[in-house]
Amino acid sequence: MADLERIDPASYAQLSEHLRTLETHYRDLCDIEFTIERGTLWMLQTRVGKRTAEAAFAIAADLAEEGLITQDEALARVSGDDAVRLMFPRFDTAAVGDPLAHGIPASPGAAVGAAVFDCAEAVRRAAAGEKVVLVRQETTPDDLPGMVAAQAVLTSRGGKTSHAAVVARGMGKVCVCGAEDLVMNPAGRRCTTAGGSTIEEGTVISVDGSTGTVYAGAAPLVDSVVMKYFETGERPDGLVDAVARTLDRADGVRRLGVRANADTPEDAARARRFGAEGIGLCRTEHMFLGDRRKLVEAMILAHTDSARVQALDALLPLQRQDFVGILEAMDGLPVTIRLLDPPLHEFLPDRTALSVRIAAAEARGNPPSAHDAELLEAVNRMHEENPMLGLRGVRLGLLAPGLTAMQVRALAEAVVERKRAGGDPRAEIMVPLIDTVEELRLVREEVEETLAAVFEASGVAVHCPVGTMIELPRAALTAGQIAQEAEFFSFGTNDLTQTTWGFSRDDVEAAFFSAYLDKGIFKVSPFETIDPEGVGRLVRIAVAEGRAARPDLKIGVCGEHGGDPASVHFFHAAGLDYVSCSPFRVPVARLEAGRAALTGTETSDSR
Amino acid sequence: MADLERIDPASYAQLSEHLRTLETHYRDLCDIEFTIERGTLWMLQTRVGKRTAEAAFAIAADLAEEGLITQDEALARVSGDDAVRLMFPRFDTAAVGDPLAHGIPASPGAAVGAAVFDCAEAVRRAAAGEKVVLVRQETTPDDLPGMVAAQAVLTSRGGKTSHAAVVARGMGKVCVCGAEDLVMNPAGRRCTTAGGSTIEEGTVISVDGSTGTVYAGAAPLVDSVVMKYFETGERPDGLVDAVARTLDRADGVRRLGVRANADTPEDAARARRFGAEGIGLCRTEHMFLGDRRKLVEAMILAHTDSARVQALDALLPLQRQDFVGILEAMDGLPVTIRLLDPPLHEFLPDRTALSVRIAAAEARGNPPSAHDAELLEAVNRMHEENPMLGLRGVRLGLLAPGLTAMQVRALAEAVVERKRAGGDPRAEIMVPLIDTVEELRLVREEVEETLAAVFEASGVAVHCPVGTMIELPRAALTAGQIAQEAEFFSFGTNDLTQTTWGFSRDDVEAAFFSAYLDKGIFKVSPFETIDPEGVGRLVRIAVAEGRAARPDLKIGVCGEHGGDPASVHFFHAAGLDYVSCSPFRVPVARLEAGRAALTGTETSDSR
Repeated sequence: MADLERIDPASYAQLSEHLRTLETHYRDLCDIEFTIERGTLWMLQTRVGKRTAEAAFAIAADLAEEGLITQDEALARVSGDDAVRLMFPRFDTAAVGDPLAHGIPASPGAAVGAAVFDCAEAVRRAAAGEKVVLVRQETTPDDLPGMVAAQAVLTSRGGKTSHAAVVARGMGKVCVCGAEDLVMNPAGRRCTTAGGSTIEEGTVISVDGSTGTVYAGAAPLVDSVVMKYFETGERPDGLVDAVARTLDRADGVRRLGVRANADTPEDAARARRFGAEGIGLCRTEHMFLGDRRKLVEAMILAHTDSARVQALDALLPLQRQDFVGILEAMDGLPVTIRLLDPPLHEFLPDRTALSVRIAAAEARGNPPSAHDAELLEAVNRMHEENPMLGLRGVRLGLLAPGLTAMQVRALAEAVVERKRAGGDPRAEIMVPLIDTVEELRLVREEVEETLAAVFEASGVAVHCPVGTMIELPRAALTAGQIAQEAEFFSFGTNDLTQTTWGFSRDDVEAAFFSAYLDKGIFKVSPFETIDPEGVGRLVRIAVAEGRAARPDLKIGVCGEHGGDPASVHFFHAAGLDYVSCSPFRVPVARLEAGRAALTGTETSDSR
Repeated sequence: MADLERIDPASYAQLSEHLRTLETHYRDLCDIEFTIERGTLWMLQTRVGKRTAEAAFAIAADLAEEGLITQDEALARVSGDDAVRLMFPRFDTAAVGDPLAHGIPASPGAAVGAAVFDCAEAVRRAAAGEKVVLVRQETTPDDLPGMVAAQAVLTSRGGKTSHAAVVARGMGKVCVCGAEDLVMNPAGRRCTTAGGSTIEEGTVISVDGSTGTVYAGAAPLVDSVVMKYFETGERPDGLVDAVARTLDRADGVRRLGVRANADTPEDAARARRFGAEGIGLCRTEHMFLGDRRKLVEAMILAHTDSARVQALDALLPLQRQDFVGILEAMDGLPVTIRLLDPPLHEFLPDRTALSVRIAAAEARGNPPSAHDAELLEAVNRMHEENPMLGLRGVRLGLLAPGLTAMQVRALAEAVVERKRAGGDPRAEIMVPLIDTVEELRLVREEVEETLAAVFEASGVAVHCPVGTMIELPRAALTAGQIAQEAEFFSFGTNDLTQTTWGFSRDDVEAAFFSAYLDKGIFKVSPFETIDPEGVGRLVRIAVAEGRAARPDLKIGVCGEHGGDPASVHFFHAAGLDYVSCSPFRVPVARLEAGRAALTGTETSDSR
C-alpha cells in the first residue's frame, strides 16, 4: 500500500475509500482482490477474512473501539477455540528456519522431539528418557502406546477426524496430521520433505499443533502472553488487552457461573487467577495416592476393625490438611468436595503384573512373601470384570465401614480450622454415582450426623450443602425423586456419556472413534462435545424434573464438557447455573458463556 | 372329618354346610378354626388358605370345574412362581427320613452333596469331581467361588434378601437360607441340628430349595410330572391336567406373544414343546466356541486379508449348518438371529492366566513358542479395561472386515437350503448394541446387499426383516430415529439395566446387592424384575417414539426379564408384542401374559 501511494496516489485514495466502505458495510476485516489497469482501479472480489486467533481478538477489539461494532458483536466474533490457541506456548518464528512441512493443525500446542517411525521405537526411547515425535503415515489403534510415549504425533495422511487427530486431542497431545508433502519410508526409518530434506530416525524436529507447521531442530519456545496475563494479571496493550476486554464483556453478560475442577491448593489458586468462581469438582481420590497409598492399602487389607480404624485415623489428619489448603485458596467461594469415587482395588497393584511377578519368582524357587501373598489374594478377590460398573462411588461409601465418616469428619474439621483462622470456608459435599434417592438419603444421614458431631464439639457451625453427581442414566430419569434429598446436582457428563452410549472412553476412543467419524456415525466425538439427543436429553429431563421437585436446586456440570465451547452453549440453553472445567479452560468457558448469553438458545437447538 | 362324622353327625352336617357357605362366599380354599363345645359348633376364624404350588393349580381348576369361579378367575389364582416350582425335580418325600432342618426356600430345585463349611474346601472337593453343599452361617462376597462350586447353598441366617439367597437365585442354584435350628461350628467343620444330629464335613445331605427342607443322606429324586407333560405332551388327569387347562386359558386370553431364547436346534425344539411361538434371541457367539475356537482365533490373529478370508470361509459352512438346524426346529415360526455381540478378545485366552503361564515358563528358562508370543501380543493389544463397554456388538460388525457378511451369508444360504427342502424358514436379523440410527443404516446396507446376492444367485427369495436390540440408554432415547431403519425392536433388558444403573451384574450382584436389599435401596434386584422407574421409563419412551415413527414396528424383549412374572405384566402394560425368555420359562411367561391380559395395566402402574 505504501508503494501504491507513491506510484499512483489517485488510485490509492480511491482504494482507501472503497476499503472504508467495505469495512463499514461488513463491519469486519475483509480480504479483497483488486487490479489497476491503465489507471483504472477494478475491485475484483471481497469476503470477510480468515484470521489467526491473535487477529480475531485484535480486530474485534479495534472495531469495537472504533465504534463500528458493539462490544457484544466483538464478543460474538471471537471464540473459545481462538482463546485456547492463545494460551499455549508457541515457537519463536523469528528464530526458526524455513518450515520442513505443513499439515493440518489437529491438536494445539508446540513440542520438540526426536523423530521415530514406529510405536515400539517411540516406547523404547521414551522409556530411556528421550523426548520423541511419532511420525507415521497414519496411526492405528496399535500405535496407542507410541502415542502415549511421544511428545507429539505427526502424520502424512488423514484429516481432523483421523485416528491420530482424534486420539491426540483426547490425550491433549500436540498433533499435526495430513502433512502430505512428507514421503514416508517407515522400513528405512526416515521420510523426505517436499524441499528434499530427509528426516532420519533420531532427527530432532519441532511440531506446532496450533498452526500445522513442522520445523527442523529444536525451535525455541515463547511463552504465551495471554497465559502470563492470567497467571499474573499483567495487562499490557495490544493482544492481551483485547483478550482481557473481551473476557470482561463476557463476564458482564453471561448468566452461567464458571467454576474449575481442582484437587490441590495450587490448582485452586491458579483456577482463581483464571477467573473461576469456585470449585465445581474436587476429587478426593488423588489424595489417596503417593505416600498415602500404604495407608489406603492397610485400610483395604485390614482383617480387624481396629486395624481398619487405625488406618482411617492415620488418613484423617492428612485429608484434613488437603481440605484446609483448598478451602484457603478458594476462601469465600464454593468448593464442591466429591467423596471417594473409584473402586478400592485401584489403589492396589495391577492384577496381571502382580500375578506375573509372583509366578516368575515362584518358578525360580522363591515363594512370595506373606505380604505379596496377601496382596495377590486381595487383588484376585476384589477383581472386577468391568470396574467402571462395579463397587465404587456411593456404593463404596455405603459399604466400606468408616470411609465416608472419615472424609466428612476431615472436611468438617477443616471448615472449623479455616473458620477459626478468620476464613470464609464454603464447602459443599458431593456424593458420586447415585442411582436412587434411597442411596442419597442413607449417605446423607451419615454425612449430616458426622457434620453435626464435629460442629457441636467445636462450637462452630457452617452450613455445608449436600448434593449429588448426576452421572448415570437412572439418576437423570429419577431426578425428581433425587432432588428431594439433594441441595445441588452436578452433571458428570463423562460418566453419563459412557453409560448412556455404553462405551468406555479409554477403551473405545483409540479403537474406533476415528472410523466412526469417517463413516459419519459421529459428527464430533461425544466426549468432546455433548451429544444433545442422548446425553443432552437426559440432562434436560433431570433439570426440568429436579427443579420441579425443588425450585431452588442449584445445577452445574463438572465433566470435561464444561470447558467445551459448543457444550457451554448447550448448558446455557438447558438452564444450568454453572459449568466447571479444568483451570486452563476457565477463560474459554467464561467467553463462551458470554457468547451463549448473546445468542440465546439457538446454538444448542440448531445442532 | 371322618372321625367327626362318626362321633357327632349333627355337628358334622352343620360344619359341612358352613364350609360350603364359606367356599361359595370366598370362592377359594379356606383355612378354618372351629371348636365343638357341649354339642355346639363354634366357628372361630377363617381366611383364604395358604397352599402349595400343586394345591394352587388343583384347587383353582376344581373350583372352575364346579362353576364356583370362572376360568379367568382360576387363571388369576395361580402364578408363574407356582408354575416354576412344579417344573423342578423334587425329593420323594415317601422315601426320605425326617427332615434335618427347615429354612426359607430361597432358590428352587433339589440338590444332593457332601456338606462343606468353607469356600476353599468347596472349591477343592468340586475340583476333584465331588458334589458339595456349601453350609455357612451366612455367605459374603468372599464365598463366591465356593457358591459357584457347590450344588446348593445352605445358611443358618438371613432371609430371601440375604447374600446367599440373592446370589444363588442369580446363579439359578438351589438355596435354603435362614435354617436357624442349625448351630454352626465352622472351626470344627460341622454343625448340629435341633434334633441333636451332627452334620460333619463330608456328610451327604439333600437340600430342597422349593420347600426349604434339608434331609440326611442322598434323598431320591422324582421327576416333575409337569415337566414331563411339556416334554412329551402326556396329559394325565390331576395336577398336570389342571396346569394344562390353566395354560390353555392363558393362551386364549393373552395379547403378548411368547418366544424363547435358544441357540441350538435342541433348545429350539424344546422351546417349541414348551409352547414358544418362535425364537426371540438366537445368540451366535455360542457357535464360535468349542472346536471352532481355533478358526475364530485364526480370524483374529490373521495378518493378511487372505488368511482372514480363509478363516471366515472355514467358519461359513459351520455357521450355515447351525442356522439350518435351528430354522428346521422352528419351521414356520420366526427365528431372530443376533449378529456376533461379544468383544473378540473373549475368544482368546484370559490375559492374566496366559501372562502367568508364559512368565513362569520363561523364569524356568523356556521361552514362549511363536504362537504363545503372538497370542500374548494380541491379548495385550486387545485388552479392554471395561469389555462390556468396548469394541463389541455393531461396533465390531462395522469394523471387523468380513464378519457381518459371513454371518449373513451363512444365514441366507441356510434359508435357501430350508426353502429348497420344502421348509418355511422365517429368519429375522438382529443387530446388537445400536447407539445411533447411522450405525444401523450402515450395517443394514451390508446385510441387505449380502442377502440380495445370495437370493439372486439361488433364485430363492425370502424376506428377512432387519431389526435391532434396544439395550443402551441412547438407543431408547433416540428410538424415533432408529425405527426408521428397524423393522423390529427387541429390548435387551439385561444390558439396558447394566448401563442405565451403571453396574455390571457379574461384578455387583455378589458384591453388594444383598446389602442394598437389606438397606431398602432395592425392593427386588433390578436384574430379576424390571425397574419400572429407570429402565422401564426408557422402555416406555422407546415404545412410544418407535411406534410413532413406524406404526407397524414389532417390539419384543429378550432379556431374562422376559420370563419374570412381574416384568411380564410390565411389558404387557407397556404395549410390547412379545416376550422372549429361556425355554423353561416359556410356560411361566404364557401364564403371566394371560394373567396380565386379565388385570389390564394395573400391575405395572401400581409398582
